Amino acid sequence: MTSPVRITALGAAPRAFHGQIRDLAVRWALEETHTPFEVHLATDAERASPGYRAMQPFGKVPAFEGDGIVLFESGAIVLHIAETRGLLPREPDARALAKSWLFAAVNSLDPDIIALGDIDHWAPQEPWAIARRPAVESMVRERLALVDARVANAGHLAGDFSAADIMMIMVLRQLRHTRLIEERAALSAWRDRCEARPAFQRALAAQLADLARTSAP
Amino acid sequence: MTSPVRITALGAAPRAFHGQIRDLAVRWALEETHTPFEVHLATDAERASPGYRAMQPFGKVPAFEGDGIVLFESGAIVLHIAETRGLLPREPDARALAKSWLFAAVNSLDPDIIALGDIDHWAPQEPWAIARRPAVESMVRERLALVDARVANAGHLAGDFSAADIMMIMVLRQLRHTRLIEERAALSAWRDRCEARPAFQRALAAQLADLARTSAP
Repeated sequence: MTSPVRITALGAAPRAFHGQIRDLAVRWALEETHTPFEVHLATDAERASPGYRAMQPFGKVPAFEGDGIVLFESGAIVLHIAETRGLLPREPDARALAKSWLFAAVNSLDPDIIALGDIDHWAPQEPWAIARRPAVESMVRERLALVDARVANAGHLAGDFSAADIMMIMVLRQLRHTRLIEERAALSAWRDRCEARPAFQRALAAQLADLARTSAP
Repeated sequence: MTSPVRITALGAAPRAFHGQIRDLAVRWALEETHTPFEVHLATDAERASPGYRAMQPFGKVPAFEGDGIVLFESGAIVLHIAETRGLLPREPDARALAKSWLFAAVNSLDPDIIALGDIDHWAPQEPWAIARRPAVESMVRERLALVDARVANAGHLAGDFSAADIMMIMVLRQLRHTRLIEERAALSAWRDRCEARPAFQRALAAQLADLARTSAP
């Protein structure tokens, strides 16, 4: 018998990031596929340790152990779960589209969204951030318009709900301190549909509960 | 018989970006696997057209048509080529590691490297950029140290040369206007080994030739 799936998540984090730390995407994919899993909460000290770095070179979360392999990077983990447990369309065209959108989430949306978060969370009052912010927000808006157009036409990013939606929602949750999603009707309706899924609700509640136990207020 | 592989690349670009536009990763993976392919050079007007946007929603390159599917996002395309044509380790542990590193290239390295490029190429004299640059360079350096440690120990990112090395090299080529790679002996030796591969040299020469025909000086 294969050993159970074990993921590593954060044991503590600033409250602004609760509900958007990347282990949420992995929890969600596992919940969607009814995969039993254990959650290990890593301390900052553990994440800096050579043992953890051997599994996750960047000292980040999530990490995944299961199916006889170890994985890091939420995109790689969600894609693995999707391919092994049916979270991608079966039809080849739609399956390719889902993988393309999954990568688009982490590489065409995330960089600008990270840049906006870096400003808003870490440097909101600094002159460089005040000068830079409008251009970054404008780049984010341009990309959001394209995701909005896609889900307005198709309902989801590729075929039915898939791993692509999970990764895109995960990336877009970093905009919760803004109203950029809410500006767009189709985008926010798609987001609400995805986040209303019982698997997402279970995953979110579990992440929030794990963080509530150990995070400072 | 399956139709041949066709990729879309840029027909013109500012000279600073020649040799680092993302179709290079796809050309490289196809060259490594001796896959015949056609290159279509898209104009700016074509990339803005509804027809192209139906294939590549962001209007970017590369796009991939072949094997009965359409893909966008260089990460998705390189991963597809790797999985179908043997550019990943066969052993499950090393294969998982290669996929993790491929995602790390596009999601743990690329955002900070893009931020540095945005400063250096588009706003080098702006006060916000001058104020912000040291912190961005420092973040890039931290990540590079981890890649350096990996290739110093293992020679490549996962097993032998793989798609992970292709995507990481592609992302790191955006630092060619700096000396950040050259600061690190193992990192630059690995980079040089990878870029000395005949498949890379063919891919690079082809991209440069395609751009030289149409780009302004």
